[in-house]
Amino acid sequence: MERNFRIEALQEFTRQVFLKIGCSEEDASIATNALLSADLRGIDSHGIARLSGYVRLWEAGRINSSPEITIVHETPSTATVDGDRGLGLVVAPFAMQIAIEKAARCGTGWVAVRNSNHFGIAAYHAMKALEHDMIGISMTNASALVAPTFSNERMLGTNPICVAIPSGIEPPFIADMATTTAANGKLEILQRKDLEAPVGWIQDEKGNDTRDAHALKHGGALLPLGSDREHGSHKGYALGAIVDIFSAVLSGANYGPWVPPFPAYVPMPEGQPGQGLGHFFGAMRIDAFRPADEFKQNMDKWLSRFRSASTIEETKKVLVPGDPEREMETERRRQGIPVLAPVVEDLRKLADKFSIVFP
Amino acid sequence: MERNFRIEALQEFTRQVFLKIGCSEEDASIATNALLSADLRGIDSHGIARLSGYVRLWEAGRINSSPEITIVHETPSTATVDGDRGLGLVVAPFAMQIAIEKAARCGTGWVAVRNSNHFGIAAYHAMKALEHDMIGISMTNASALVAPTFSNERMLGTNPICVAIPSGIEPPFIADMATTTAANGKLEILQRKDLEAPVGWIQDEKGNDTRDAHALKHGGALLPLGSDREHGSHKGYALGAIVDIFSAVLSGANYGPWVPPFPAYVPMPEGQPGQGLGHFFGAMRIDAFRPADEFKQNMDKWLSRFRSASTIEETKKVLVPGDPEREMETERRRQGIPVLAPVVEDLRKLADKFSIVFP
Repeated sequence: MERNFRIEALQEFTRQVFLKIGCSEEDASIATNALLSADLRGIDSHGIARLSGYVRLWEAGRINSSPEITIVHETPSTATVDGDRGLGLVVAPFAMQIAIEKAARCGTGWVAVRNSNHFGIAAYHAMKALEHDMIGISMTNASALVAPTFSNERMLGTNPICVAIPSGIEPPFIADMATTTAANGKLEILQRKDLEAPVGWIQDEKGNDTRDAHALKHGGALLPLGSDREHGSHKGYALGAIVDIFSAVLSGANYGPWVPPFPAYVPMPEGQPGQGLGHFFGAMRIDAFRPADEFKQNMDKWLSRFRSASTIEETKKVLVPGDPEREMETERRRQGIPVLAPVVEDLRKLADKFSIVFP
Repeated sequence: MERNFRIEALQEFTRQVFLKIGCSEEDASIATNALLSADLRGIDSHGIARLSGYVRLWEAGRINSSPEITIVHETPSTATVDGDRGLGLVVAPFAMQIAIEKAARCGTGWVAVRNSNHFGIAAYHAMKALEHDMIGISMTNASALVAPTFSNERMLGTNPICVAIPSGIEPPFIADMATTTAANGKLEILQRKDLEAPVGWIQDEKGNDTRDAHALKHGGALLPLGSDREHGSHKGYALGAIVDIFSAVLSGANYGPWVPPFPAYVPMPEGQPGQGLGHFFGAMRIDAFRPADEFKQNMDKWLSRFRSASTIEETKKVLVPGDPEREMETERRRQGIPVLAPVVEDLRKLADKFSIVFP
């Protein structure tokens, strides 16, 4: 049902595809690294499985493969970037780099981005800060699949947030999470296997609980983290809303129900108030608050204390955010990346379309 | 069972108590406004109900009522503040003011605070940014009551986050939330009434589901937002952890299981790695990203679109974070603040102790 590929083979193939749609050599490499970091970290829904989707957006004229990305507004610690309809996979690294440079100069850097597209996984961008002894933050809005508490209308995307925090000798803290109970990728896995979803992940078109993993096709919605009012869904809704506002109202992108859809066949929402979709990035220099070695010693103590917290079941140790993805990356770099049959088929079609050697 | 007080009467009484424990006139007013904003907004667990708790902390020598609050480290966009064991109700407004001043000068301001105490409700501090056309952010750690996913050990406080976002003519967006499924204050209400808690709020000492609202007294723990792994408790745990690290590892305060407890009779944790408890504040000038009037027009559109989203039940309209608290404040300013009998009794004892006129 699936085939195994070495990461280098997928990288070379992906790079070729980005070159064929008109990316520069540099942008093709940048986009490839961003996209395939998802496959390495085990977020299969956001990696090479989406490559053909990006190509279709380019074919539909919704992605500009040779964008002129510009800073349209700035202060010592902030910038607003216009992505010129570029690949989010290229626009986001540009913006994160500005955040890092501003942090180097004045302690922190914060960049809002408009007129962009999907940027892959949030963790890839936030983690760029780590090598500079900075905390990295990244978030993005996305097209509306999530209903606010008390609503049966899809108003927010799964709007992920990532916070990456450096450490000394312990592996770092990297929390990358959709602001919904379950990421859409997890629902897609159930859909493919025709399994039911747990109660609390989705609601039907009337707003009732449902276990039908296909409910989103019939007007249903994903639920904010917390699932229902009694379990704090208003908090998940608030988090998704904060991501939407920081990413899009601050930058001049589209927000709420007006965010452009990822599938190229879905028509654009009418009356859009902004440009493209939006992201928001932050970088905070550790030594803008405290000497970096002091911070790292304490962060190591924090990490080892939590990793050794008392467990409910002996076999399930307490994890720190980012631990499962790091273990996955180690394994996949060694043993290769499993790609599902329908995705392999998709890649084969891309190889044919662009006359590229299939990996 | 309860008595009703005008806010002005409670303010005058509270101010007198803070003066009696040695606060300056200015600090007594600052602390009073911060503390009683909780009662106005309907967060009864964090307001005047805690006044005698603050007094007991002062009696135990854990609160310094005349602190010398200092900036111990800074860059153009950041500062680290040492609260000198002062009331969080005084230290936090000092730190938030620095964040606002830094934002005025270089776009954003970020302040980590160590050696502080409980600061009341997060919203009070974040909302200070609104009048400057800034987004305000505040968070604090607190003593450990929450178990990470897969753990039966209390490792994190309820660690709230507030984000306050200005608007034009629509009422603003103010999300203030504990990073747990239910705030501890909600559990206290059930305890007082001897009611059971919904499944998903707490676990017992072994980590099993329980509805016993008193389970925390027997080694149980509050659950992170998401309640269980299948419903995303690892995300709530990550959010609480981010608050802990920003507030304390960045500032040099105590973190995780080492955070000082609020009840003065609970002994301090051994081997504390830092000083006091920690907070983290941020202010971002709107026009550091985009002209403020453009932002406000779009924010109004965002707010009105969400407030008019389609509802599941006709009688439950879709709210924006902060709506219930704002309505509560309007009502309580007009009709007074209901105070429960045990709290009234507490206040009466304070009046006797300090020879102050009871309101």
